[in-house]
Amino acid sequence: MRKIIRWASAIFLTAASLSLLGCGTEKAAVKEQVKQETIKWKLVTSWPKNFPGLGVAPERFAEKVGKMSGGRLTIKVYGAGELVPALQVFDAVSAGTAQMGHSGAYYWKGKSPEAQFFSTMPFGMTAQEMNAWLHNGGGLELWQEVYAPFGLVPLAGGNTDIQMGGWFNKEINSVSDLEGLKMRLPGLGGEVLKRAGGVPVNMPGGEIFTSLQTGAIDATEWVGPYNDLAFGLHKAAKYYYYPGWHEPGTTIEFMANKAALEALPEDLRMIVEVAAKATNEEMLDEYMVQNAKALKILVNEHGVELRQFPPEVMARLKALTEEVLQEQVATDPQMKKVYDAYMAFLNDAKEYSKVSSKAYMELRDN
Amino acid sequence: MRKIIRWASAIFLTAASLSLLGCGTEKAAVKEQVKQETIKWKLVTSWPKNFPGLGVAPERFAEKVGKMSGGRLTIKVYGAGELVPALQVFDAVSAGTAQMGHSGAYYWKGKSPEAQFFSTMPFGMTAQEMNAWLHNGGGLELWQEVYAPFGLVPLAGGNTDIQMGGWFNKEINSVSDLEGLKMRLPGLGGEVLKRAGGVPVNMPGGEIFTSLQTGAIDATEWVGPYNDLAFGLHKAAKYYYYPGWHEPGTTIEFMANKAALEALPEDLRMIVEVAAKATNEEMLDEYMVQNAKALKILVNEHGVELRQFPPEVMARLKALTEEVLQEQVATDPQMKKVYDAYMAFLNDAKEYSKVSSKAYMELRDN
Repeated sequence: MRKIIRWASAIFLTAASLSLLGCGTEKAAVKEQVKQETIKWKLVTSWPKNFPGLGVAPERFAEKVGKMSGGRLTIKVYGAGELVPALQVFDAVSAGTAQMGHSGAYYWKGKSPEAQFFSTMPFGMTAQEMNAWLHNGGGLELWQEVYAPFGLVPLAGGNTDIQMGGWFNKEINSVSDLEGLKMRLPGLGGEVLKRAGGVPVNMPGGEIFTSLQTGAIDATEWVGPYNDLAFGLHKAAKYYYYPGWHEPGTTIEFMANKAALEALPEDLRMIVEVAAKATNEEMLDEYMVQNAKALKILVNEHGVELRQFPPEVMARLKALTEEVLQEQVATDPQMKKVYDAYMAFLNDAKEYSKVSSKAYMELRDN
Repeated sequence: MRKIIRWASAIFLTAASLSLLGCGTEKAAVKEQVKQETIKWKLVTSWPKNFPGLGVAPERFAEKVGKMSGGRLTIKVYGAGELVPALQVFDAVSAGTAQMGHSGAYYWKGKSPEAQFFSTMPFGMTAQEMNAWLHNGGGLELWQEVYAPFGLVPLAGGNTDIQMGGWFNKEINSVSDLEGLKMRLPGLGGEVLKRAGGVPVNMPGGEIFTSLQTGAIDATEWVGPYNDLAFGLHKAAKYYYYPGWHEPGTTIEFMANKAALEALPEDLRMIVEVAAKATNEEMLDEYMVQNAKALKILVNEHGVELRQFPPEVMARLKALTEEVLQEQVATDPQMKKVYDAYMAFLNDAKEYSKVSSKAYMELRDN
């Protein structure tokens, strides 16, 4: 409010001082004054421009901010590689090359290993649990602590929902089928597969289809039905496995340059924060609708064969996940702090799920 | 943007015309101009003022709108009975007595039977599925159609998450235990219980505790652990049953008077819509965190005994729900239209849940 009054006073004084000049000149002066109030931000992303789901969300965010601010804050969205490469989003926003970024926190484990907990963990929280933890369970405050040394402020900026287990050309009937399995599976999931005797492979998106088709890899994960269908992976694999144990509800992040965010007047800062929260839900809503539609198309029109991972395979991977995490946090107090908070919330959420979501879905969907 | 320029021009002209007057007078004139831009709205609710979860959400919404608009749109929130009684929210906003309301669509089945589908249905969609349907599956457009004749615009305004089955002093081990069961269970759930031979009772919140304690009723549902613990129901019942088949993810609504909403400049209208969407997620986040905490307290500190409804009881109630709904839509084409849309989405969501949420939770939480 104070800000508006200040601004109005400035225009008023300009007007008063110019009142002896002609009317055209006066109008031009006012327009100039208004123009000076317009703030222009850049937002860099880790996704191809307008990539379904992930890439559309920051565009919608920018549109909301522009409209809510009456054009006083305009945000230009850049696809991966347009201003900076996909994996330089963190550095670019930290340095102030762009004022905001839209990416995934697990990309920054080289900066801070505990960043991973703010995206997704194998056998970890679902999308709704992540939202609850971040916004009401202390998660966001921890995340802010982790990003503070880099001059960054994180905000939840979407969720892809529970992903699928992946596309396989080999059947997984027992733990021994994991031995020697060559699978494109980056991150912690890959580390777990390695301990189970598999061969995790990392490769750029553009090479996955051909590698699967030629047998250079036996399997790959991508996202979920929505993005997988668009990518055409059903043309290169026999089985579509579920559930996505390695990414049960991946939080996507907005990050803002701290100095830029703090320089905003209070109303614009609130507009950025509330628009981010609305975008966070919007992306999850879109993924759920589009995943359900794409799943139907994959099964009914493309004859894709759905397979569930056997319980003993899941139990083995779950035990190995705990082993890997325990080792990683053993020598890293900051990572241990985030891990402990994450696990405490997850354990309560599981007990609640047993009498709510899980109990209900078992009943309804059988 | 155009709006700001128009407004700035108005101030400019005022300033120019007043430029012969003293400086103090000029400043007062500017302040008056700014004040005239302030819009004041009333928001009536169906909840006691600041009721945990439900009542806190509209307060947070109003705070967001106030801050994002720099004080240009201020919204005063009224608890149930402060301006109008709890169940007159719909009429009050329709008549323009208040510009907004925060309530639950199932209260308005007397106005429009299909309104119920926009809150919750027995054996229906979860919170996340409701959000997805409303925002990306055509649900909100249908809801707008249903409210349009009343001059109202609905928006999703929160979710209580899957509720609990309720507090019982009688064990439910088989379908025959439902016979003669006196339970406080309003709405469609009550109608279903009646067909199963039970005696659904409706009573105001204030009478529930004593009725349960004295044996006037055998059971009651309320909300979930968060609100149930605060209400003290564990002191009056032996068993806490799950899952809440009758309310699997209750959407709470904002409604705006259409004329008032459309009279807002574009930026303020967008601020109202985006703040509502952020509030929608916030309430669900809060319920999940607080439900998980309260469940732990109920079990660990108050020794509450959790009981799962037997599968055959659930199967019977599910079949009866379908029977009741089929009868209700048979003679009502408008209700049938919403029912068909709801069921089509629910069926796709169930298939998706089988390979995503349900499959994952079964795996993770065992």
